[in-house]
Amino acid sequence: MPYVNIKITREGATAEQKAALIQGVTQLLVDVLNKNPKTTVVVIDEVDTDNWGVAGESITVRRARGE
Amino acid sequence: MPYVNIKITREGATAEQKAALIQGVTQLLVDVLNKNPKTTVVVIDEVDTDNWGVAGESITVRRARGE
Amino acid sequence: MPYVNIKITREGATAEQKAALIQGVTQLLVDVLNKNPKTTVVVIDEVDTDNWGVAGESITVRRARGE
Amino acid sequence: MPYVNIKITREGATAEQKAALIQGVTQLLVDVLNKNPKTTVVVIDEVDTDNWGVAGESITVRRARGE
Amino acid sequence: MPYVNIKITREGATAEQKAALIQGVTQLLVDVLNKNPKTTVVVIDEVDTDNWGVAGESITVRRARGE
Amino acid sequence: MPYVNIKITREGATAEQKAALIQGVTQLLVDVLNKNPKTTVVVIDEVDTDNWGVAGESITVRRARGE
Repeated sequence: MPYVNIKITREGATAEQKAALIQGVTQLLVDVLNKNPKTTVVVIDEVDTDNWGVAGESITVRRARGE
Repeated sequence: MPYVNIKITREGATAEQKAALIQGVTQLLVDVLNKNPKTTVVVIDEVDTDNWGVAGESITVRRARGE
Repeated sequence: MPYVNIKITREGATAEQKAALIQGVTQLLVDVLNKNPKTTVVVIDEVDTDNWGVAGESITVRRARGE
Repeated sequence: MPYVNIKITREGATAEQKAALIQGVTQLLVDVLNKNPKTTVVVIDEVDTDNWGVAGESITVRRARGE
Repeated sequence: MPYVNIKITREGATAEQKAALIQGVTQLLVDVLNKNPKTTVVVIDEVDTDNWGVAGESITVRRARGE
Repeated sequence: MPYVNIKITREGATAEQKAALIQGVTQLLVDVLNKNPKTTVVVIDEVDTDNWGVAGESITVRRARGE
């Protein structure tokens, strides 16, 4: 029954990579807590780099500096 | 004062259907908990089927199998 | 497959009232969008009145004024 | 280490305005709780006006009435 | 920079199990998307069984039936 | 109409500090985006240090090392 929300910046994650996140975190919940994978829900949000901030700056600004 | 977030897959819900969700869940909170509808906020997120997983698989994969 | 999060202030909602919210919003998603209730997940968060703000004030302060 | 999620309707907020929100809320957490800005994360979600409801109506409908 | 929120029912997960979830999902984001673990944030919410619903029923009710 | 969710570790924030966060972020949305404070909602979640991870470790473990 777990619900997992993964937020990442929108920077080209492929459908295959997103499928690997869904498969991996569902299995993690089986391994650690014996949760039923059939009712484990995973939602991935991809967020524009203008809309994500760390250390008071947007990721857009940080990427422009090469970080 | 309640806040409700409804997440569904992005598969063509119309503005009318989304308005019905907003109206319906606001009324539910009036009926069950006598909450003031004027300050009840509802946010609907529509999520790409590649970004939603159940049972370790994306909805894209499940839809391709006819589920 | 929908996921619904309902946030309310922690002011004594009973198990019966929370069950009514779960039942009601699950049925709403069946009625409006024909969603499968078996995989509809609802999570209710009850939030302390010190931790909820509207109009720049906590609910604790508003309740103390009789609002 | 705080995490802040700001949800607003998608109505033309500029990159500069979003940068101001990121900077401002990060500083607020320094000022009030002495939180380390380096690990403060801010995510801004812009939500379509059809997908945001207040008082049982979508923002689209309210804007059409001039509200 | 990813942010991960894991919601589970409050049914006795230990600090060691929660540490394993934090470690595991952080590593998953390194393996799949090469994300920097130093700025990966994980928040686990434990939700009372009265407050979690599936298929229109609370987990409390489902557990009482032996599910 | 904005909705803001602030997540911090549960480490003794006072009602006064939480009121300052509510007041400050509501004012920020007025200043930056001219949002109506009357319908701005703020929810603060305080999360146990066992349930919050950064860099693959819980905050409990990091605090024990003096970080």
